Amino acid sequence: MPVPASSPAPDTGEPGWIMFGEMAEQPEVLRRVLDEAAPQVRRTARRIADRRPRFVLLSARGTSDHAALYAKYLIEVELGLPCGLTSMSTVTAYGASPRLADVLLISVSQSGGSPDLVATTRAAREAGAITLAVTNNPDSPLAEVAEFHLDMLAGPEKALPATKTYTAELLVLYLFVRGLRGDAGAADALPDLAREVLDRSAEVSALAGRYRFAERMVLTSRGYGYPTAKEAALKLMETSYIPALAYSGADLLHGPLAMVDNISPVIAIVPEGPGGRALQPVLDRLRGRGADLVVVGPRVHVRAASGGFVLPTRELPEALQPILEILPLQRLAYEVAVARGQDPDAPRALAKVTKTR
Amino acid sequence: MPVPASSPAPDTGEPGWIMFGEMAEQPEVLRRVLDEAAPQVRRTARRIADRRPRFVLLSARGTSDHAALYAKYLIEVELGLPCGLTSMSTVTAYGASPRLADVLLISVSQSGGSPDLVATTRAAREAGAITLAVTNNPDSPLAEVAEFHLDMLAGPEKALPATKTYTAELLVLYLFVRGLRGDAGAADALPDLAREVLDRSAEVSALAGRYRFAERMVLTSRGYGYPTAKEAALKLMETSYIPALAYSGADLLHGPLAMVDNISPVIAIVPEGPGGRALQPVLDRLRGRGADLVVVGPRVHVRAASGGFVLPTRELPEALQPILEILPLQRLAYEVAVARGQDPDAPRALAKVTKTR
Repeated sequence: MPVPASSPAPDTGEPGWIMFGEMAEQPEVLRRVLDEAAPQVRRTARRIADRRPRFVLLSARGTSDHAALYAKYLIEVELGLPCGLTSMSTVTAYGASPRLADVLLISVSQSGGSPDLVATTRAAREAGAITLAVTNNPDSPLAEVAEFHLDMLAGPEKALPATKTYTAELLVLYLFVRGLRGDAGAADALPDLAREVLDRSAEVSALAGRYRFAERMVLTSRGYGYPTAKEAALKLMETSYIPALAYSGADLLHGPLAMVDNISPVIAIVPEGPGGRALQPVLDRLRGRGADLVVVGPRVHVRAASGGFVLPTRELPEALQPILEILPLQRLAYEVAVARGQDPDAPRALAKVTKTR
Repeated sequence: MPVPASSPAPDTGEPGWIMFGEMAEQPEVLRRVLDEAAPQVRRTARRIADRRPRFVLLSARGTSDHAALYAKYLIEVELGLPCGLTSMSTVTAYGASPRLADVLLISVSQSGGSPDLVATTRAAREAGAITLAVTNNPDSPLAEVAEFHLDMLAGPEKALPATKTYTAELLVLYLFVRGLRGDAGAADALPDLAREVLDRSAEVSALAGRYRFAERMVLTSRGYGYPTAKEAALKLMETSYIPALAYSGADLLHGPLAMVDNISPVIAIVPEGPGGRALQPVLDRLRGRGADLVVVGPRVHVRAASGGFVLPTRELPEALQPILEILPLQRLAYEVAVARGQDPDAPRALAKVTKTR
């Protein structure tokens, strides 16, 4: 694997070496989820399917909220169940007492330690919901308070920007939703494809230059790719402090497009499948406006753009592509932060466990 | 009413005169909703309450999506019903067939003409949902396809940035949710309070100067004020093209806070009530970072900030404050756009009815 010039050696204390190491672990973490977590995920899914939930709520913050949004698409498309993301303050600030019979609440959190998530999950369980926590810490308060728990087995995550726990969350949620349908999904190729993407990091370093002096960025996608746009925007903001705005392609046309012009670079995540096809009119509009457009997706879309990263999806279902899409974008955030003289491991003002109530 | 220097005369063709006129109509539109729309809203709410919906979904885009988010808070807090915002592409792009017995779908749209909203509403009705459309056009395809329709009676809206239809949507949704509970709510003081806020527009003009050269802005709130933060960010983006990022206070602490420093001005919307109290730790963190903080809310919070606009809420319930909060922020977007030499009536690249599919 050719190591780009900016790669920090491990344990050197160079800016970003922790995040760098955790990004590199992702193929191995995905393999561990498939080998070691999947059986428990399937068992839990079977037990929950027996309870016949009719409505699903998802609760999460930050990076995990993007994993929750991904799960929302999966649940609506694959299960046909109506689904919503919770507004936690209705319980924690306003004392709402929801009626949650037949509701499955899925709470997603790397640390399992956020007090508002714990409070919301406890309140939901008391209100009759089936509660499931997905965390990276089986001893966490969230794992304890939920009726069911899935461990994402990502190993300790120490850099402040979440990377390997995000892709692990996506895969656990995918396996869980497929488990609710009673099948195993089609994720076996993922770890190798992820390795292939990471091995091409030099291509990402080449893209990073164009954002070193960017004052703002727009990220867009549709369908399964939309959570990737939101997560990539968050990575860019928390490492490089670039105001990065993420919109679904449809919402972009409803207002924020006015802000895109030849000084606002756009990154489009183009899924191979219906999501990508639904994004086509948005790509056309962006090109019509002379936007600087970089694409993460199929070769044909990268060719038609100013640049990009061709995703090796081969036969991978669209529902699994988000796990690959985010990899070059995590790396991009890392590269841009280092180029701007910032330390991606320790963004100013942030703590790893955020204690919102 | 003292007219600020930048007010365009009606029909002059001066930049922003259409938006200006529509903002000024808002007290009158709110009065019309209370006098003329409310009885039908109550009747419809009674008929829907008889059907005992157990879950609520909301469908909307752009400005109306912020009204839908407002309704989500109301429904969770006031009715205790689980509630979600739809991801329309799961139906329109992926062909999901949701199982929607016992579900109430509320579709919100100024024009009632967006094809994806029409498709989602039709699919939901076929899937067994109770469907309600809230529009400004009773002859629209959306009004036709939904089982129930509420007309917001805002009169024709011609400026591209929605203003009076936003506040009308909020009030119709408030009356509808109170109607589901079987009461009339407490909105009578609203039109006069709105007039009072509009009469103080000179205070907003004074604030606008600080954003004329801003390269980015952050807006934050919690609870009922959060939709206001999102809508204000959209207004600023579509009129002034300033990248304006809106976060719930809780989410802000989970990452984007890294981006806030003494060159990123912050506008906080501080509701008088639990939402405002939940925002307090966020305000403290922002002040600790030396952020330039402008507050729309109670006097005590405006005094502790770098500046702001004191909202005359008097005895107004927190659930109704969003209808006042947005008024100075609409005006701010207008003022900043004009100061930057742009025409708020006709943002580049946008059409009034956005035809996303």
